[in-house]
Amino acid sequence: MTMKSQISSALSDFFFEYETPRQVLVRNRRVGVVCRLIQLGVLAYIIGWVFIYEKGYQSSDTAVSSVFSKMKGVGYTNVNGAERVWDVADYVFPPQGDSSFVVMTNYIITEGQKMGTCPELQGKANCTKDADCEGGSFKRTGHGQLTGVCVPANKTCEVLAWCPVENDHNIPDPPLLMSAENYTLFIKNSVTFPLFQVTRSNLVEGIDSSYIRKCLHDPEKAPLCPIFKLGDIVKLSGFNFETIAKEGGAIGIVVDWTCNLDVDIKHCKPKYNFHGLYGNPGETDKARASVGYNFRYAKHYLDGSVQKRTLLKVFGIRIDIIVQSLARKFDIIPTLTAIGSGVGIFGVATVVCDLVLLYLLPKREFYKNMKFKYTDTQAQVSSTIAYELRT
Amino acid sequence: MTMKSQISSALSDFFFEYETPRQVLVRNRRVGVVCRLIQLGVLAYIIGWVFIYEKGYQSSDTAVSSVFSKMKGVGYTNVNGAERVWDVADYVFPPQGDSSFVVMTNYIITEGQKMGTCPELQGKANCTKDADCEGGSFKRTGHGQLTGVCVPANKTCEVLAWCPVENDHNIPDPPLLMSAENYTLFIKNSVTFPLFQVTRSNLVEGIDSSYIRKCLHDPEKAPLCPIFKLGDIVKLSGFNFETIAKEGGAIGIVVDWTCNLDVDIKHCKPKYNFHGLYGNPGETDKARASVGYNFRYAKHYLDGSVQKRTLLKVFGIRIDIIVQSLARKFDIIPTLTAIGSGVGIFGVATVVCDLVLLYLLPKREFYKNMKFKYTDTQAQVSSTIAYELRT
Amino acid sequence: MTMKSQISSALSDFFFEYETPRQVLVRNRRVGVVCRLIQLGVLAYIIGWVFIYEKGYQSSDTAVSSVFSKMKGVGYTNVNGAERVWDVADYVFPPQGDSSFVVMTNYIITEGQKMGTCPELQGKANCTKDADCEGGSFKRTGHGQLTGVCVPANKTCEVLAWCPVENDHNIPDPPLLMSAENYTLFIKNSVTFPLFQVTRSNLVEGIDSSYIRKCLHDPEKAPLCPIFKLGDIVKLSGFNFETIAKEGGAIGIVVDWTCNLDVDIKHCKPKYNFHGLYGNPGETDKARASVGYNFRYAKHYLDGSVQKRTLLKVFGIRIDIIVQSLARKFDIIPTLTAIGSGVGIFGVATVVCDLVLLYLLPKREFYKNMKFKYTDTQAQVSSTIAYELRT
Repeated sequence: MTMKSQISSALSDFFFEYETPRQVLVRNRRVGVVCRLIQLGVLAYIIGWVFIYEKGYQSSDTAVSSVFSKMKGVGYTNVNGAERVWDVADYVFPPQGDSSFVVMTNYIITEGQKMGTCPELQGKANCTKDADCEGGSFKRTGHGQLTGVCVPANKTCEVLAWCPVENDHNIPDPPLLMSAENYTLFIKNSVTFPLFQVTRSNLVEGIDSSYIRKCLHDPEKAPLCPIFKLGDIVKLSGFNFETIAKEGGAIGIVVDWTCNLDVDIKHCKPKYNFHGLYGNPGETDKARASVGYNFRYAKHYLDGSVQKRTLLKVFGIRIDIIVQSLARKFDIIPTLTAIGSGVGIFGVATVVCDLVLLYLLPKREFYKNMKFKYTDTQAQVSSTIAYELRT
Repeated sequence: MTMKSQISSALSDFFFEYETPRQVLVRNRRVGVVCRLIQLGVLAYIIGWVFIYEKGYQSSDTAVSSVFSKMKGVGYTNVNGAERVWDVADYVFPPQGDSSFVVMTNYIITEGQKMGTCPELQGKANCTKDADCEGGSFKRTGHGQLTGVCVPANKTCEVLAWCPVENDHNIPDPPLLMSAENYTLFIKNSVTFPLFQVTRSNLVEGIDSSYIRKCLHDPEKAPLCPIFKLGDIVKLSGFNFETIAKEGGAIGIVVDWTCNLDVDIKHCKPKYNFHGLYGNPGETDKARASVGYNFRYAKHYLDGSVQKRTLLKVFGIRIDIIVQSLARKFDIIPTLTAIGSGVGIFGVATVVCDLVLLYLLPKREFYKNMKFKYTDTQAQVSSTIAYELRT
Repeated sequence: MTMKSQISSALSDFFFEYETPRQVLVRNRRVGVVCRLIQLGVLAYIIGWVFIYEKGYQSSDTAVSSVFSKMKGVGYTNVNGAERVWDVADYVFPPQGDSSFVVMTNYIITEGQKMGTCPELQGKANCTKDADCEGGSFKRTGHGQLTGVCVPANKTCEVLAWCPVENDHNIPDPPLLMSAENYTLFIKNSVTFPLFQVTRSNLVEGIDSSYIRKCLHDPEKAPLCPIFKLGDIVKLSGFNFETIAKEGGAIGIVVDWTCNLDVDIKHCKPKYNFHGLYGNPGETDKARASVGYNFRYAKHYLDGSVQKRTLLKVFGIRIDIIVQSLARKFDIIPTLTAIGSGVGIFGVATVVCDLVLLYLLPKREFYKNMKFKYTDTQAQVSSTIAYELRT
């Protein structure tokens, strides 16, 4: 035969032949039922669990997202007869509408601080004589640099600091800005699933400007309204408003985008969940949790030619808007991977049944003989004969 | 046999034996061609799609990243003859170079506000008599607390607020800071893929300080230059600069790190994409989208002994720098999972061919007989004889 | 037979039968050993690598997280005899305790700036005559708008700007706030793994308020203490404090939550890692890296009736607290996928052995004959006879 005809013969052999495994059909009720049940179980698992429940035929993607927040509302305080109102430029930090911000609900104000020396706050640097106050040193949680002088009247060291130093021993109770309960928060959020080229905004179909103007979020009645009352947010996250307003706290608003993109895109809607982040309201071990949320903030001004500042210790509700996203869509790769893997598990079922058949049944020797052909000398002889006969 | 020799015999049996399935080689052109084509299809799918296209032999990781931004440029306004310039400390919020910030492009300034009572803005709290203004109450979008007095001249209620109240009915048009178009933005971004222990910066090979000093990003000519003109960013994201500058808007700059770490690390470079985040420029349903971006910001000062503030309603372009990352590298686990899964799918091909062979072909009874051996009584007898002969 | 009995017969056939592949047991030492070793290798790979090392029986999830930071400590500067202290309201930007913030370590202060005209900084806009200064134009990195006048004394153009313009040619060395080394940072971090419904805080078991009050983080002795000395952070990230304090820099604190939720939840603890983000300390190619970290920040005030501002060019350490999380837990789906895939790879082992058996061994024709049954005319005749005999 020439090379060419050899190759074409090999190719035709390859294409016109087809091999399929030879099998023994075991007619045994017990083994049959057991094996069929195992196989049906595997099939039910693959179809029911992997495909229907876990949606193994879909690939998944998380989103890149962008959040913009806007508070509205006016607070009112009356401290010793001094009335004032607080608007959004006064009580939101930072002002530019980030996804993480703080709403002031209580504060300790220290007005007219200027650089100078004054006695430290009681308890921060106790002393009875100058030697107790090492000049030039700092206390880790102190307000300034020790000058080396002890102030006998206060029994504390003198410090170089913004004077007078802030006294935060007493937190106003009830909180000064209880009216914060009625502030409203507007959330704008857009998500993009890069793998599927899908962009969605939380202003979904039906949430237009006229609806936004009058709606207020309610988990039951208005689950898609992006305007939230601060009091509702606190309540839904499990906190008590007066408690959290006094010392501050942190609340996460999770915007959950779990979307099945095999159905119409309009079903891809956000869900809003609220939960406490630190000092969890359900936390029983109070010693463990570091409770409250506060920070210090200063407004500087010039009084005559003296630089002064107003220091605010702000207690507030920190709100973190967290976007959580998972979109799924049919994809051929995970589908075939799941099928291939399922066929593999089918193989496991066969292996288990074979173990039963070959090692546990009384007639195991008989079945072993049926299943296996030995390349022993004897068998070799007879099969060689068959081979020679055939060729 | 002793225990030891039994075990060693079992072990040698296990190691020196090898079982391979017996197969029928069906010499049938139609079945052969069909099956070979199915098998070749599966093979092509596994190699072509899973391995080459989807890179199933690689494992993937997303990065932890850090972004620093810096604006440069000076704006100029001339409002009724009052010239002033705006530098970076004036027009960027917040100042410290975050990945998300706002560039002011337009503003409504209300100077010299102090705490007091004044009429509310027209339209916010209309009244004809004092009874229309409930003392101590608040309007959701109002500026202060109603005092219970109606101001007949304005036909609005009197409020306790920062007075005079801001009037934002007319947004300056054209925007006051059109010169913002020429500001430049410098982005520093570093990403770390923890799984692969790889760290990259957007100042890749060739992007050194001398290049940065003179380059300007251009999608075609300078795709790696990390300095962007604000006007270009707006144009590339599909907005019109004057429109977005007037009422504000939000733009996402996506820094896309899609890296194949099997090739040289220097090919792992960022791509910059720009797209509108809210009030998408391509959005046709204007009623749905909540357009614009603005926030209020106050500068406090002491005038004599009176606390005053300058309120700015800032309209601006909010820029979110979003890092999107996906690195891939050869990994043995996904490779073998893909191969194993592929072999499973090969099994499916055999099952399909068997169905054709055993249920559709005219000679199906013949093939069934070839493939299966039955453990019937008769067969049992003959095979038992064979068994006895052999032992 | 009736329809019903046909179906019941088919069903009983299906349930009481069980097919298992017929196999050839090849008694050949070489092939046997090779194949058993391949199979044992595959088994070892599946059990050892996929299951034990890579934990293929677990599904994984990343967390949504929330971070709150708080600095403590007081800085002290003495510039030309003017003593002042800097507290947290002065040196942290932004003040509200974000996960990304800047600690000021050095600064250039320009006091009493007011809007007006003055000569540009030398080097920014050189000129010898008025024609060199195009009125109304801007230099990209300049301080203001050129008025068109050249100031001969300075040889620079006159600009409309906040005057006098800032001179940042000389950065204070040593840095003014070297005392920043002793500031402390407190990190509160909570993570939630939504898939497993697990929430953890970095104040784990044993880290209670009394411990926090006195502990200081140390990688060896107190790895769980959430209070960090700024000097330690800088050292652990590989920087030299004086170098980074002078020109600024960026450091990432990675809070690593790698949790195996199959063991007790109390073993799910954070690990803290520190590394430089830009101007990496190990970077040798200094020309490439854009070193330093700075931004400008203004404090506005009214002097008489003139608006003035104090401009600070702040050099500082930017700290990004990055939460990296990966929780794993037993899940049936990945377990079965791994097993199924493993069985598939087992199939590959058999294919390899068959290739050896059928194409490489001297007795390959014999084995081929054992393994395959041909549906040739001759074979067909004999098997048809067998078939007829049996039926």
